[in-house]
Amino acid sequence: MASSTGDRSQAVRNRLRAKVLTLDSMNPRVQRVEYAVRGPIVQRALELEQELRQGVKKPFTEVIRANIGDAQAMGQRPITFLRQVLALCVNPDLLSSPNFPDDAKKRAERILQACGGHSLGAYSVSSGIQLIREDVARYIERRDGGIPADPNNVFLSTGASDAIVTVLKLLVAGEGHTRTGVLIPIPQYPLYSATLAELGAVHVDYYLTRSAPGRWTWPSFTVHCAKARDHCRPRALCVINPGVPPWLTRPCCLPRTPGQVQTRECIEAVIRFAFEERLFLLADEVYQDNVYAAGSQFHSFKKVLMEMGPPYAGQQELASFHSTSKGYMGECGFRGGYVEVVNMDAAVQQQMLKLMSVRLCPPVPGQALLDLVVSPPAPTDPSFAQFQAEKQAVLAELAAKAKLTEQVFNEAPGISCNPVQGAMYSFPRVQLPPRAVERAQELGLAPDMFFCLRLLEETGICVVPGSGFGQREGTYHFRMTILHTPLEKLRLLLEKLSRFPAQFTLEYS
Amino acid sequence: MASSTGDRSQAVRNRLRAKVLTLDSMNPRVQRVEYAVRGPIVQRALELEQELRQGVKKPFTEVIRANIGDAQAMGQRPITFLRQVLALCVNPDLLSSPNFPDDAKKRAERILQACGGHSLGAYSVSSGIQLIREDVARYIERRDGGIPADPNNVFLSTGASDAIVTVLKLLVAGEGHTRTGVLIPIPQYPLYSATLAELGAVHVDYYLTRSAPGRWTWPSFTVHCAKARDHCRPRALCVINPGVPPWLTRPCCLPRTPGQVQTRECIEAVIRFAFEERLFLLADEVYQDNVYAAGSQFHSFKKVLMEMGPPYAGQQELASFHSTSKGYMGECGFRGGYVEVVNMDAAVQQQMLKLMSVRLCPPVPGQALLDLVVSPPAPTDPSFAQFQAEKQAVLAELAAKAKLTEQVFNEAPGISCNPVQGAMYSFPRVQLPPRAVERAQELGLAPDMFFCLRLLEETGICVVPGSGFGQREGTYHFRMTILHTPLEKLRLLLEKLSRFPAQFTLEYS
Repeated sequence: MASSTGDRSQAVRNRLRAKVLTLDSMNPRVQRVEYAVRGPIVQRALELEQELRQGVKKPFTEVIRANIGDAQAMGQRPITFLRQVLALCVNPDLLSSPNFPDDAKKRAERILQACGGHSLGAYSVSSGIQLIREDVARYIERRDGGIPADPNNVFLSTGASDAIVTVLKLLVAGEGHTRTGVLIPIPQYPLYSATLAELGAVHVDYYLTRSAPGRWTWPSFTVHCAKARDHCRPRALCVINPGVPPWLTRPCCLPRTPGQVQTRECIEAVIRFAFEERLFLLADEVYQDNVYAAGSQFHSFKKVLMEMGPPYAGQQELASFHSTSKGYMGECGFRGGYVEVVNMDAAVQQQMLKLMSVRLCPPVPGQALLDLVVSPPAPTDPSFAQFQAEKQAVLAELAAKAKLTEQVFNEAPGISCNPVQGAMYSFPRVQLPPRAVERAQELGLAPDMFFCLRLLEETGICVVPGSGFGQREGTYHFRMTILHTPLEKLRLLLEKLSRFPAQFTLEYS
Repeated sequence: MASSTGDRSQAVRNRLRAKVLTLDSMNPRVQRVEYAVRGPIVQRALELEQELRQGVKKPFTEVIRANIGDAQAMGQRPITFLRQVLALCVNPDLLSSPNFPDDAKKRAERILQACGGHSLGAYSVSSGIQLIREDVARYIERRDGGIPADPNNVFLSTGASDAIVTVLKLLVAGEGHTRTGVLIPIPQYPLYSATLAELGAVHVDYYLTRSAPGRWTWPSFTVHCAKARDHCRPRALCVINPGVPPWLTRPCCLPRTPGQVQTRECIEAVIRFAFEERLFLLADEVYQDNVYAAGSQFHSFKKVLMEMGPPYAGQQELASFHSTSKGYMGECGFRGGYVEVVNMDAAVQQQMLKLMSVRLCPPVPGQALLDLVVSPPAPTDPSFAQFQAEKQAVLAELAAKAKLTEQVFNEAPGISCNPVQGAMYSFPRVQLPPRAVERAQELGLAPDMFFCLRLLEETGICVVPGSGFGQREGTYHFRMTILHTPLEKLRLLLEKLSRFPAQFTLEYS
């Protein structure tokens, strides 16, 4: 090959030089990203596991991960019907096997018919397989008591995270004090702050306060929103439903209220706020099947919005997210999910589709799984009884785990915990002695990060400090999943964990 | 719920208002994204399909998609062994079935052992399952003749696109004339320009020219790079290997040269350029198994870099991408892929891991599939013979298709085509009559977009205009996949297509 620069190349041959890409030269926005759920504490857990494997002596024999809502990693068995249909889709030779129920075969054939080349190995269109988008729309209609859903407003995604990032990307604009601000509930799911940091947008934290039993006001939200207008332009409001608000945000051990699964009244107020402040609504509804407590019921933002009538129903922009990772199925590894957009500008919706097309398509096995989740076996199908039994068993066990968690934590000294009514986490508050807070500050750590690191080193239990999600100044929490299976395993974990704050307090007082 | 703003809400009740999110207010970077492979021509193809279903009369009976490298959608059958192991992983109840070969079962068990809760339904660590990263590293070592590969430098991804976007994200910095510039080969894969538009970085196009048979120089690259320094800071160089350069960029119908699969000399020159200009190298090597022509051989950038010795081997930063979507397997829907980074700053590598962790993990079925692709059955395994036979049949057919495509196109008037030696596309040049160019300009379309739209309307054949990939000023091309199975189907398609330019020329002269 002729090269005009061959001689220059000789000249530099022995020169040592700095890397092109360093912390100083890299994307500063990426550096600002923080992601607690998989942050330093999880890194340390990985190291400890390696040390244990190498025979290093520790006060524990295994690292117990309670940092991420990952049901099957914690021992939950997959739902048989879902995996039967998926196996048939993956390997259609099995369609002639007598070992699969007829309805599983019919479902697999139906999905394969809708795939390019009748194979999960073909790309789908970027918004997802049309048939599955139609099934999702019908699921939403059933869920919302018949309120219509248009498949053209449904976009399948690589887990809910992917769809949330896509919608946030559309919303980001402006520079300096006109940068997009997005209101996020504290404690938050750190995907929001991480994505906003990466996009150069501003997260505006909001807290809820309780004015009377079962009644919630948003004073700090309003204040924060007004304050935010000094340095950004608030354009979107994120809510997690069920989840935050308000289940994690209050002083702990309040009397039991139906607040943790959002009441309908609460949702209406959020919609009115968004409408008045001209905010695009993002409703993270991935826990819609995780509602356990008696008297609690899931209300989707879409349903409440539509039932509120004009001017809200026809105008308020909303994106609602769902996932195959949570619920009773807990199929995190397949990365299935969708977003439904409501009242989105048609031209913007075209832009969203274009943006999705750059990544080609969501994983097709995850799309197939989502199809089964939104259209499970009907009562007349051969697989119905087993499917229902397995689903109910998982949900009943999650409810029992929620109750057990609350009970064990609230009996332990130095720790207190709200009722867990939805989702799959508890967010207990811990009392940290002043000397521990000082010690943490000396080490340059958030006090609850210090607590969680000590907990990990002493017990092998890996939980996430509350500071990763946000919490009120001067309060300390950790987030722990309640997914360990069977219940007895969770009990042992809870008991081990709940003995630790007393030991920690003793050490630092 | 108590709401201090209830009265204001009454006041706005009947006011109609603009959307929060409109083309005017949305992210301007997203608006600048263009993605030809799934652009307007594919939208029109979808509409035509719908019209055909509704019984609208057309000069064709089906839309034939040749716009995207999607082998299984075009009729290629999946490799049996891959799907057997995946089905076993999805539904481990099948492990007791006598209908699966023993090695498939062992492989499934090995993968499941490495999964959280022994299930594909658990999240993996964000960089991918450790065992699979180790298998990828061993694959790279074998491929590169024993040059070591460290699993800690391998990150699994959601197809190669995901990993490419992640590395580009790290590289983007600066504002105005210090913005990151990334050199991309023309014609490019539009993922690069789309992602750089979204990230607010600058794409600096480069072309290769041929100085003598089999010898290539980069004059316009150097010129472009120097020019680019006026308005941006070039920090990275993308190459597609095999692919562009130089297989698509030259005046067509040159004598056959081994150029289209990059020669070793050519790769060395690229590495020297990158080193001298202080550019991070991105090597898109997803077509590494798609090398058909006699005398052609795949050289990875990593191997050549390491064999070049100091100062290159120990310093030049490189990211090499691979995918399960191309090659002999064509498993696009599973979205499997990986990136290996070489000489990356350790702190930046930590930042990359953090960034990946925000999306939790790549789809686990895609990870499992990747594992099988990088460690196929060994000669002593029961599945070896069938696996090899199927793989060779696919590659032989692709080689035959490449030859057929070149032959049919070069016999047709108004169309000419380079030999297709790697990958799975042809990029023929078409002669467009001046009146057609004028008509396109009247319609506000690129001339080759106009040609491709007319082709679609008249024949139902969907190909992508060359302008979506970039081409020399005043030349017109289209990109067509050569994947249609069986060969006879491809022949009919090619013949139909090659009759069209003459008809088009007649119409516009």
